[in-house]
Amino acid sequence: MKQLDSIARLINKFTKLPGVGAKTAQRYAYGVIDMSEEEVNDFCSALQDVKKNVHYCSECGNFTENDVCDICLRRNKDTIIVVSYPKDVLSIEKAAPNKGVYHVLHGTLSPMDGRGPDDIRIKQLIPRLDGVKEVILATNPDVEGEATAMYIAKLIKPFGIKVTRLAQGISMGSDIEYADEVTLARALDSRITL
Amino acid sequence: MKQLDSIARLINKFTKLPGVGAKTAQRYAYGVIDMSEEEVNDFCSALQDVKKNVHYCSECGNFTENDVCDICLRRNKDTIIVVSYPKDVLSIEKAAPNKGVYHVLHGTLSPMDGRGPDDIRIKQLIPRLDGVKEVILATNPDVEGEATAMYIAKLIKPFGIKVTRLAQGISMGSDIEYADEVTLARALDSRITL
Repeated sequence: MKQLDSIARLINKFTKLPGVGAKTAQRYAYGVIDMSEEEVNDFCSALQDVKKNVHYCSECGNFTENDVCDICLRRNKDTIIVVSYPKDVLSIEKAAPNKGVYHVLHGTLSPMDGRGPDDIRIKQLIPRLDGVKEVILATNPDVEGEATAMYIAKLIKPFGIKVTRLAQGISMGSDIEYADEVTLARALDSRITL
Repeated sequence: MKQLDSIARLINKFTKLPGVGAKTAQRYAYGVIDMSEEEVNDFCSALQDVKKNVHYCSECGNFTENDVCDICLRRNKDTIIVVSYPKDVLSIEKAAPNKGVYHVLHGTLSPMDGRGPDDIRIKQLIPRLDGVKEVILATNPDVEGEATAMYIAKLIKPFGIKVTRLAQGISMGSDIEYADEVTLARALDSRITL
């Protein structure tokens, strides 16, 4: 006995979501069958509303329901924080709100995967640099994130703007014993005088 | 900065799926934004199709798109395998197809949660027992599954039909060292002469 056609189709759709495999998709599809018709219709309209209403802010590239997002609209533009993905904006806003406006690249440079500077929102950053005092590069501290940060730092240098990068070191609450060597070495290099 | 309204609403909908928390729901919602409009519409119609087309088989209670499911329609009814959920039908069909028809209870007895015999599909099993040679009770080997199996076994006894239960013991590929005590004790009790 195989899966019913409509269930199989829904399972297939669920596997399109990030990180969802066949088993999980099946559990979700069975979950949908147990929902009321109203719940399913609500789910549907929520899906379509997001697709219809949410798009990129024409300035920073973050998600917005308007032309320009709330942050770009209201906040001082002295500082631009460059991040790889919209979800990073949320994380930074939770940790330290009001540091500045954002610039979302929607990816990282990755020569291995064939993603060059034109494949992410790097050139859109240049026209925004006018009057900016500092650009904080908040890409991930991994190979791709580092490469992206280095590339952008080099690109901005001629403008004479201060370019900074998030500090790297051991995390709060972590254990020095278990910190990886690279992190520990960086934490030592960047040690702070008390 | 908070989540956009339509994203927040979609995240909320995703958390209605079994086992999905806020973080996962957010990842899914962001995944939806990156889908094409066509993909989202497909996803939507798949959701609604499942809700519209899939319902319980009027005989066994398994999912079907017709009145009676394929298994009930075509298969010999000498043996009825009683399971708790439709997903169990799939698992058994994969492991040992064609053993018999099914009876899906859609739950287990659970006095703790206030689920009694009338809350699951137990009484629907009685009219199906005519001409049946064996009822295999394939509920989970946990407290609720055992209780459900015991209840049904007692109920069927007056009909003089053979009632069996899935064997319990150590799993293939597992390690005796790590088997829990109850499982190991049952495996010893049910040892097989070679």
